[in-house]
Amino acid sequence: MTGAGPVVVINPNSNTRVTELISAELDAFRHPGGPEVECLTMAEGPFGIENRLHVEQVTLPLARLVESRTDASAFVIACYSDPGLEVCRTMTAAPVFGIQEAGILTALARADMFGVLALSEGSAGRQRPNHRRMGVAVRCAGIAGLNISVEQSAEDPATFGKLVTHGSALKAQGAGALILGCAGMARHRKALAAELGLVVIDPTQAAVAMALGAVASDGS
Amino acid sequence: MTGAGPVVVINPNSNTRVTELISAELDAFRHPGGPEVECLTMAEGPFGIENRLHVEQVTLPLARLVESRTDASAFVIACYSDPGLEVCRTMTAAPVFGIQEAGILTALARADMFGVLALSEGSAGRQRPNHRRMGVAVRCAGIAGLNISVEQSAEDPATFGKLVTHGSALKAQGAGALILGCAGMARHRKALAAELGLVVIDPTQAAVAMALGAVASDGS
Amino acid sequence: MTGAGPVVVINPNSNTRVTELISAELDAFRHPGGPEVECLTMAEGPFGIENRLHVEQVTLPLARLVESRTDASAFVIACYSDPGLEVCRTMTAAPVFGIQEAGILTALARADMFGVLALSEGSAGRQRPNHRRMGVAVRCAGIAGLNISVEQSAEDPATFGKLVTHGSALKAQGAGALILGCAGMARHRKALAAELGLVVIDPTQAAVAMALGAVASDGS
Amino acid sequence: MTGAGPVVVINPNSNTRVTELISAELDAFRHPGGPEVECLTMAEGPFGIENRLHVEQVTLPLARLVESRTDASAFVIACYSDPGLEVCRTMTAAPVFGIQEAGILTALARADMFGVLALSEGSAGRQRPNHRRMGVAVRCAGIAGLNISVEQSAEDPATFGKLVTHGSALKAQGAGALILGCAGMARHRKALAAELGLVVIDPTQAAVAMALGAVASDGS
Amino acid sequence: MTGAGPVVVINPNSNTRVTELISAELDAFRHPGGPEVECLTMAEGPFGIENRLHVEQVTLPLARLVESRTDASAFVIACYSDPGLEVCRTMTAAPVFGIQEAGILTALARADMFGVLALSEGSAGRQRPNHRRMGVAVRCAGIAGLNISVEQSAEDPATFGKLVTHGSALKAQGAGALILGCAGMARHRKALAAELGLVVIDPTQAAVAMALGAVASDGS
Amino acid sequence: MTGAGPVVVINPNSNTRVTELISAELDAFRHPGGPEVECLTMAEGPFGIENRLHVEQVTLPLARLVESRTDASAFVIACYSDPGLEVCRTMTAAPVFGIQEAGILTALARADMFGVLALSEGSAGRQRPNHRRMGVAVRCAGIAGLNISVEQSAEDPATFGKLVTHGSALKAQGAGALILGCAGMARHRKALAAELGLVVIDPTQAAVAMALGAVASDGS
Repeated sequence: MTGAGPVVVINPNSNTRVTELISAELDAFRHPGGPEVECLTMAEGPFGIENRLHVEQVTLPLARLVESRTDASAFVIACYSDPGLEVCRTMTAAPVFGIQEAGILTALARADMFGVLALSEGSAGRQRPNHRRMGVAVRCAGIAGLNISVEQSAEDPATFGKLVTHGSALKAQGAGALILGCAGMARHRKALAAELGLVVIDPTQAAVAMALGAVASDGS
Repeated sequence: MTGAGPVVVINPNSNTRVTELISAELDAFRHPGGPEVECLTMAEGPFGIENRLHVEQVTLPLARLVESRTDASAFVIACYSDPGLEVCRTMTAAPVFGIQEAGILTALARADMFGVLALSEGSAGRQRPNHRRMGVAVRCAGIAGLNISVEQSAEDPATFGKLVTHGSALKAQGAGALILGCAGMARHRKALAAELGLVVIDPTQAAVAMALGAVASDGS
Repeated sequence: MTGAGPVVVINPNSNTRVTELISAELDAFRHPGGPEVECLTMAEGPFGIENRLHVEQVTLPLARLVESRTDASAFVIACYSDPGLEVCRTMTAAPVFGIQEAGILTALARADMFGVLALSEGSAGRQRPNHRRMGVAVRCAGIAGLNISVEQSAEDPATFGKLVTHGSALKAQGAGALILGCAGMARHRKALAAELGLVVIDPTQAAVAMALGAVASDGS
Repeated sequence: MTGAGPVVVINPNSNTRVTELISAELDAFRHPGGPEVECLTMAEGPFGIENRLHVEQVTLPLARLVESRTDASAFVIACYSDPGLEVCRTMTAAPVFGIQEAGILTALARADMFGVLALSEGSAGRQRPNHRRMGVAVRCAGIAGLNISVEQSAEDPATFGKLVTHGSALKAQGAGALILGCAGMARHRKALAAELGLVVIDPTQAAVAMALGAVASDGS
Repeated sequence: MTGAGPVVVINPNSNTRVTELISAELDAFRHPGGPEVECLTMAEGPFGIENRLHVEQVTLPLARLVESRTDASAFVIACYSDPGLEVCRTMTAAPVFGIQEAGILTALARADMFGVLALSEGSAGRQRPNHRRMGVAVRCAGIAGLNISVEQSAEDPATFGKLVTHGSALKAQGAGALILGCAGMARHRKALAAELGLVVIDPTQAAVAMALGAVASDGS
Repeated sequence: MTGAGPVVVINPNSNTRVTELISAELDAFRHPGGPEVECLTMAEGPFGIENRLHVEQVTLPLARLVESRTDASAFVIACYSDPGLEVCRTMTAAPVFGIQEAGILTALARADMFGVLALSEGSAGRQRPNHRRMGVAVRCAGIAGLNISVEQSAEDPATFGKLVTHGSALKAQGAGALILGCAGMARHRKALAAELGLVVIDPTQAAVAMALGAVASDGS
């Protein structure tokens, strides 16, 4: 695999603190002889991606960024809305992974039904059509909105309790694996899994694992 | 991740040549500082797994083997029939991946529709119910049976031509990613992808990538 | 139909009391000039089939038993987990019916939506993938776990009340027919149907009716 | 079961020759000690039911007939269009079976995918929405129209060849069980099954088997 | 469009007050130069269509009425049960719209999930199979039965409160558009939409809009 | 409805000839007393929308245009890719219709299965996920790509023959209604419907009909 380019993980919002959190979660994938995992902040992005207009605003900048990184061996778009996923796939021959897709597909390899822990109740309405598009709606036990901000998800001491409450409800609805719908929730992953006795998926890690698999496969 | 146990990849048939082929494909996942990827031959298995009775015959030996390897950080059952997948998951706290499931889920992250290249036409009848069980039947463009043996898949010079012919037909039916339904086909992966202009998935590599992702996530 | 062999109903656990209960339910299908309905206890089975390992443990003994009974005109596997159904079908030219499949398919001929009364809440997780595999998940109103043992289902005076409570809840969710997920519940069938005003299906009776239909059809 | 009324099988067209054919197929279900299986011709019916208007014309007469037969223990509507099935179910407390529903549900207990052999190509357009309504469209391998009349189906020596041709095509599309979409085809059932190596279902027999099961269950 | 015949809207019950209500709702579609929108009461219909027998009783009269109106450019059957829709389509070359179908399809153009406000709880059982037949069950958030009569829906001052209560529950279940399942509810449409902040669809208006579109298209 | 604003139909490409074609098709919807139907060319659009990048390039300009037209009573985005549909719906309180959605939903009110006549074979890959997202994939008989340009669709004398050939194939696959996937094909609508004996839908007309229905409903 000598000479293979990096896996490029793009945070499409301009909040560098989020990029740092993402990069820290990905240290476990970095090995001396293995591929580089590079994390980028997209400067043109809004500070947070909270509605459909924000999603559309980052689409073309993402497409241009992907097109420009001809050295990359794979891309991960690290926002749970999977902004620009389809167009980015037309801009490069390298594989492009969205974390929502990768998180769900990985959850399906771990449990019969998955649940999603989202920042807001409004997220369900945007995610449901995507589950249908993917063909996996029948395996979704539910989408729970915590109605917290990105900042709260990472910093507020009350967040863990909310994750437990909503995660328990999703478990009662049949979920065997939960997907964290925001980078800020990642720091609670292990404790939440232990508390609920469920698999808890960090979708950025899931996408990077798939990206590394694609790179290894191409290099083998 | 210091101290994490190996990813144990089990070939449930007793053909050690197949285990060697599998292990060779997985070299790309082995890095100095990374987790060990260990490949086992299950001595109790039949020489090949070609029908439902063979599948059932390896189920309990697999369950016992998984139960005994308390050192493993993850398991991969390296047979496209995913024998014993459900019972093995009840024998260990470590994640267990089947290559059919992992291959399909990985294909779904690369293309809208997948196709399967299987050894025999009879495979379609066994795989279709599984696609429905997984909830992904709507994204299967087709299952093509080449009517060749495991040995032919790896050794016969005519095999590549058959892969191209059936792969082209699946592409015409909408497949954007093809899954190789037999370890012996793995050596044709790159040439087939280049010839057809499609993503071609080696499902054992796909499962190992997911297993490494789970191990890294637990170690992060 | 002179000379046609018996319909062989196999209780795959080794609890002969359960076999007796099953046989008693089937008396209504025994007519002087009609086919014999024979009930067997599988000696190799565990005393009860309560988890996935138990299911796998009876699979090969069932396959061998089915293979050995070349005189049978049809088989019924009388355990709601449908253990070994697929492999048994490859061991004989006679039709093989599983009671879960037959119970659900018969319920679908009686009402738009079905519900299942199961022994434990854990059953739902094992049954849901099977509903998807069968393609009928969209017609399941719910699976209710009573969290009682096989013994309690047949003997405990509190069981009927639990059946009514959970059955009413399934009715409120749209179920027009309920399926009894355990042989021990069969004695409550009529009273439960009367109490709830719903069709209540004993799945072993449903499977034997289908088996007799297949035998009659072949004899006509 | 002493005192239980007959299973009433209604031929909703006025062609008594068809009723005779149906009754002959059902002899295998008649046992000395068993329930009576009575076949009726509905005098108000058209000579054949060949289009949607015919279907609607027999609906109310069927409802009145079912309402009037308070002695019946179960009803079978013996026309593959299942005319009046839903309204008839509201006119009696006895179970009412349609042969299309029963034929399909029985086929699903015998094979993973079913195919239908219909009189005309136009039948597919009427059956497909019904498969979706039943939730089983995903298990239909195809609907083949032979473009023959009811008379031809029973009398024309060329019919068997057409059944073999279209049945083979359905088998190639994945069908493991075929359903005969017209009473006249019933006489070819055994030879067709032998020729194709498939299960072939006579849907009237399938419905009567289910009806007898319901009667036995209520009598047990 | 000179010479194009009227859009004929048929109220299949004999309650002329309902026809008047329907006609009043349709005034907004009547323009000087545009097609005529004619509303008819079907004299042979029952005073209300409240069960399956009523539905079947109006089917043939509707078919004959549609056949007789050779001057019509399109038909709308203005009863939420869509009685006779399929047979009417075989009696004329003009397009025939059912208000349930048109209401649902129009709701799907306005929101991701729809909910239905029905007169009675029993309606859900009749509508669910139709949603499956249409293929849109996955987009139904729920069907709420208000358990009121047609008269109450139009006249009872308590009705609006019930619409708000049940509509709010459907909104919480994900509905973005509500369909009014009875002509009498139409007068509450605007206030309900304002109160709940949802799209509220009058299905007769939806069907007439589609009918006018078909007429304009044929006339263009 | 006095004072209601226009239905604004936006051609998101900058080809004014296409806008003229669209406007001409819509004359049949313009009545003296009825709402205005205004057709706009979006100057920022590319000359044709032929790939995913083009789709994304028009998304934000469409959102801004929709936001700016506060006088509009409804919007129609007149490109079969439905670019920007979701974000535009968040920019205005007025209803926004995409012609792909409206065309499909209207076809579903006319026939059991629909087919699509698309410019290129590549269109199928982009439309299929959308059918799944809408929940209507089960009612699509097929998507045929003619491999012609927009110009050819409107001007080339060979186009009609290609429409007939592909339309016939879709009819043989079960389609009862065909949707024209390009504005240039609209001029062939009537002749194609007559030639094939099928309903043929111009999706822009379908969307405008729905838009006028929404406007009338709000004005009633």
